[in-house]
Amino acid sequence: MFVTDLDAPEIDDHDRHHLSRVLRTADGEPLTVCDGSGRWRPCRFGTSLEPTGYVVEVSAPELEVAVGFSLIKGGRPDLVVQKLTELGVDRIVPLVASRSVVHWTPEKARVHRDRFLRVSREASMQSRRVRLPVIMALTRVGAVSATEGVVMAEPGGGPVGLDHPMVLVGPEGGWTEEELDNCQRCSLGATVLRSETAAIVAGALLTALRDRRVGPINY
Amino acid sequence: MFVTDLDAPEIDDHDRHHLSRVLRTADGEPLTVCDGSGRWRPCRFGTSLEPTGYVVEVSAPELEVAVGFSLIKGGRPDLVVQKLTELGVDRIVPLVASRSVVHWTPEKARVHRDRFLRVSREASMQSRRVRLPVIMALTRVGAVSATEGVVMAEPGGGPVGLDHPMVLVGPEGGWTEEELDNCQRCSLGATVLRSETAAIVAGALLTALRDRRVGPINY
Repeated sequence: MFVTDLDAPEIDDHDRHHLSRVLRTADGEPLTVCDGSGRWRPCRFGTSLEPTGYVVEVSAPELEVAVGFSLIKGGRPDLVVQKLTELGVDRIVPLVASRSVVHWTPEKARVHRDRFLRVSREASMQSRRVRLPVIMALTRVGAVSATEGVVMAEPGGGPVGLDHPMVLVGPEGGWTEEELDNCQRCSLGATVLRSETAAIVAGALLTALRDRRVGPINY
Repeated sequence: MFVTDLDAPEIDDHDRHHLSRVLRTADGEPLTVCDGSGRWRPCRFGTSLEPTGYVVEVSAPELEVAVGFSLIKGGRPDLVVQKLTELGVDRIVPLVASRSVVHWTPEKARVHRDRFLRVSREASMQSRRVRLPVIMALTRVGAVSATEGVVMAEPGGGPVGLDHPMVLVGPEGGWTEEELDNCQRCSLGATVLRSETAAIVAGALLTALRDRRVGPINY
């Protein structure tokens, strides 16, 4: 469970309900509380949460990996946020591309962002992440594509690698020539992937490379 | 579109409806027909399908990769089949594990298999696959786990590699000791993945290794 203060851990009504009613956690049962920034400690569940051990700090990953995904009509952005969180992606960037089709009002963008934060918080608990991913606000492609270390997923591009630890995935209609201009390109496979699948694959490959479960193709 | 006979291509009412009503394909527009076994040819859409070019044969992948996933209560097997198909996995194996919880009757298993076949056919069209994946019938873990080249996803296992091109993913409760007995183990990441996410990651890593977009960690 994520809490604000590890020295005086408190959980809100929503989390308490989930613990006692859905997971049927009984008073006195062990529970791990975490600040979402890499620090956690063991507790005992009850009317109040009683710390039972010291605070443990998990160091930050040596390299931050990030995935940007373009919003599309009929897309499943919640699924993308959930999966990228489970995979251990550090930064998740919802993108507006030229061919995104969806156009959120500032109010709608706020509602969606709140939902992304909730989805990623729940997925972080489920996957035992001690660092919550950063969910960025809705971003225009042009605002990040020119940054160093960024690569755009595009058929015919090179392999995904840690020299470009932020992969951007386009909408179903693809990137425009202007968007691709001056940006490195990477390929996510020989098949045509749905936008949401491409984002998940990007996250799976970046985290596997970062954790050294696979290696780069050109040593 | 998948057809039975490339020499006399015919599409059924469902596919015709999808083409003309959903995708709004007009008479005379180009269309690619495929036999689902690696052979395709260009056609022109209309009341009948008129071939406009020779049959092209795409050779089989040099190595077949496979993912088995355990059925679980409240799981999303259709999502797994869709994503593994998009990724280019050659063989998809729905598994019954000791802790699967779901117990399908033969009749229910048949209904689900028909749906898996439909989902993978649609995903194959969407991703332009020329070879349909093999969707196996519901299989007990013990019937495949002892086979050569099979590895079971389990925390603490070694990296995914092509020496074991079939990865089995367990249910949320994990494998039993008996199931793990005598079988190689691989790890899909440092975080705890939902069963469906683990299956997708296994497919993403196996296809990336097979297509040489990433390399093994121990050269």
